[in-house]
Amino acid sequence: MTLIEKARRGKITSEMRGVAKKEQVSLEFLRDNISKGRIVIPKNRYRKIKHICGIGKGLSTKINANIGTSPQKANIKNELKKVKEALKAGADTIMDLSCGGNIPRIRQAILKESAVPLGTVPIYEAIVEGIKKHKELRKIDKEIFFDVIERQAEDGVDFMTIHAGVTRKAISKLRRQGRVTGIVSRGGAFIVEWMMGQKKENPFYTEFDRLLEIARRYDITLSLGDGLRPGSISDATDAAQVQELITLGELAVRARKKGVQVIIEGPGHLPLDHIEANVKLEKKVCKGAPFYVLGPLVTDIAPGHDHLVSAIGGTLAAFHGADFLCFVTPAEHLRLPDLSDIREGVIASRIAAHAADIAKGLKRALRLDREMSTCRYRRDWKGQMRLAIDPQKVKAMRSGEKDVDICTMCGPYCSMKRMEKIFGK
Amino acid sequence: MTLIEKARRGKITSEMRGVAKKEQVSLEFLRDNISKGRIVIPKNRYRKIKHICGIGKGLSTKINANIGTSPQKANIKNELKKVKEALKAGADTIMDLSCGGNIPRIRQAILKESAVPLGTVPIYEAIVEGIKKHKELRKIDKEIFFDVIERQAEDGVDFMTIHAGVTRKAISKLRRQGRVTGIVSRGGAFIVEWMMGQKKENPFYTEFDRLLEIARRYDITLSLGDGLRPGSISDATDAAQVQELITLGELAVRARKKGVQVIIEGPGHLPLDHIEANVKLEKKVCKGAPFYVLGPLVTDIAPGHDHLVSAIGGTLAAFHGADFLCFVTPAEHLRLPDLSDIREGVIASRIAAHAADIAKGLKRALRLDREMSTCRYRRDWKGQMRLAIDPQKVKAMRSGEKDVDICTMCGPYCSMKRMEKIFGK
Repeated sequence: MTLIEKARRGKITSEMRGVAKKEQVSLEFLRDNISKGRIVIPKNRYRKIKHICGIGKGLSTKINANIGTSPQKANIKNELKKVKEALKAGADTIMDLSCGGNIPRIRQAILKESAVPLGTVPIYEAIVEGIKKHKELRKIDKEIFFDVIERQAEDGVDFMTIHAGVTRKAISKLRRQGRVTGIVSRGGAFIVEWMMGQKKENPFYTEFDRLLEIARRYDITLSLGDGLRPGSISDATDAAQVQELITLGELAVRARKKGVQVIIEGPGHLPLDHIEANVKLEKKVCKGAPFYVLGPLVTDIAPGHDHLVSAIGGTLAAFHGADFLCFVTPAEHLRLPDLSDIREGVIASRIAAHAADIAKGLKRALRLDREMSTCRYRRDWKGQMRLAIDPQKVKAMRSGEKDVDICTMCGPYCSMKRMEKIFGK
Repeated sequence: MTLIEKARRGKITSEMRGVAKKEQVSLEFLRDNISKGRIVIPKNRYRKIKHICGIGKGLSTKINANIGTSPQKANIKNELKKVKEALKAGADTIMDLSCGGNIPRIRQAILKESAVPLGTVPIYEAIVEGIKKHKELRKIDKEIFFDVIERQAEDGVDFMTIHAGVTRKAISKLRRQGRVTGIVSRGGAFIVEWMMGQKKENPFYTEFDRLLEIARRYDITLSLGDGLRPGSISDATDAAQVQELITLGELAVRARKKGVQVIIEGPGHLPLDHIEANVKLEKKVCKGAPFYVLGPLVTDIAPGHDHLVSAIGGTLAAFHGADFLCFVTPAEHLRLPDLSDIREGVIASRIAAHAADIAKGLKRALRLDREMSTCRYRRDWKGQMRLAIDPQKVKAMRSGEKDVDICTMCGPYCSMKRMEKIFGK
């Protein structure tokens, strides 16, 4: 049985116990929402994970860090360093998006290193392998797609992005309406290129049951990818994007019926005023499935600062109900992220997730801010360092400060210190 | 006549012409809103400013950068470097918050250097001077407060923060209810300490007409400060804060009647779900006066990243109607900002302002994103650098990239490049 099937039959697993305790929700609440597909716990049946996590309704907002090689930068040691950096910074899950070097070996090494659920986008490996074998992308035998998924499942991958909603219908909508940035999803572009070349429907769509069979066997969570997500403010919430979402909603229902957990991926680039509508639409159309947003980026003109741009959109998305934020690093749109980018990306997403959790009234989140503020009022710098999302940065920025009680911002005119004398502690 | 009086009598000034052109709004729209106090153009009657700006209804969101010395760090050359850095990064206005070194000399130097409107918080200088003269803060003769305001006005300061709403009534509300972080406004704390020591009402409140007389003479814009703003999520939107806001609303009406332009300052630390309510409240209670928010910071636990935390809150505040964002730097809560902090703070606020302008449908803002995305689709890196909010960062991050067409993120698997081949440019 898969986790969702166990939940349906009223069984409580050790994973459920772990998540309920960590999240401070009742076991019954958790079980019920897992059974309805509103909460997922991504975990391959055959993998041991030190830190599992629940994603979805009523739980704290989770964040994912993307790592992985590209053809120009494919150093396995560096990827393992990225895993460590992402975990140290506080990522809840990691996705290996490698498309350069020895992809299976890199994945296997990352799976060993990662103490959190690991996700992949199998079509990357399939395309790289397929091009090697068949020379051209459009000539690739689709059996490779399913072979790679099976192999990755065997390796222990916990969740997989599959772009099953990129149908011929959605592509024709995209072509008819036009777009500024076309298709910006790497996996989406791959599948579209294959479909156009072969003049065929998306095999992940036509053979969705075959996919579900594999996912069921390994209890893999499917992350239904948004291959047609908008890559610019101009393209936000257009017909192609929504057409794909509708398809994903139908596929989500089919997956649940087969006992497979599902997450839905979402945009992308969205103006701030579209965010609430996008979240509500996903929740309705996909029957409450956890929403995994890639941003959203609320402007296109700040490359070099896209971690910040995403934190703005991510906070609002999570506040309105998005459950899972994919980090975006300062390097987005410019180059493959390095270690420092990974760190900044995770921290920015954690801030967004936490700010949303506060606004949603999560008591554990609120308590942290209260404790921090109490330390701040007392100029308890050690306490502030301990409670900070990024203690390393706090330490570095305080390192030049000589006065242990106050800071160089106000010096003796510190309002907290002066008010403490008048109003007391 | 002051600007607001001219606007009321239907006169069009060169400042109005400049702002209307820059903002692409009609002169009549601008004049009408200035006359009603919904838009201000901060400018001392006797100062020449190269880049004036309008702040308020229907205009693009403006941002302010704070600079200034503290007793421990009071180097005039460094402050002038900060001015240059802030202007280069794109600040619309600058505030000199110096409270260390020779404050008048520092201000006069900054006024010469700054090509944008300059604001101050006169009570800082008054308190520093007053303590020198009277030994203790609580013994300072209130005449010093007004003398300093007059001197700063003579120097050419364009707008001044005055904490006239910190009344005995508001303080008693604060004491009765309790707070986690008490009073976090430096100016607010000064005035409260003075009021408690002298057992008197706030002189800026009792002698508000005297203040208006000075402001009128120099056509200075008053920025009515929120001395009781919340300094933590726990203290957000409490009775003390709202009590002060109500008073500021009354004072704003009195100021306008006397021909003085007014801005209202706002929080501070607010959970995301309080932001809309805070903006609506200000707009209603203060009869549409431009709202100048100091953040808002949507969590307390991310010191070292408070520019990002503020950008989240600032975007949402500006989207709901806040007109003017005070930057917050990564050094906030930790130490006096350095040059790099100033830069990061300005960039973060510009991103917030721009993202809000997009969501508000400002055509000029939307056009920029469209142009950027068109360059991105074509891998036109020079175009992207030119259009980026921070070209310097883009250049640095691209410096190690060898391929002029694509980037190391996807390499040959670049979705834009591959889709361009299929769908055309």
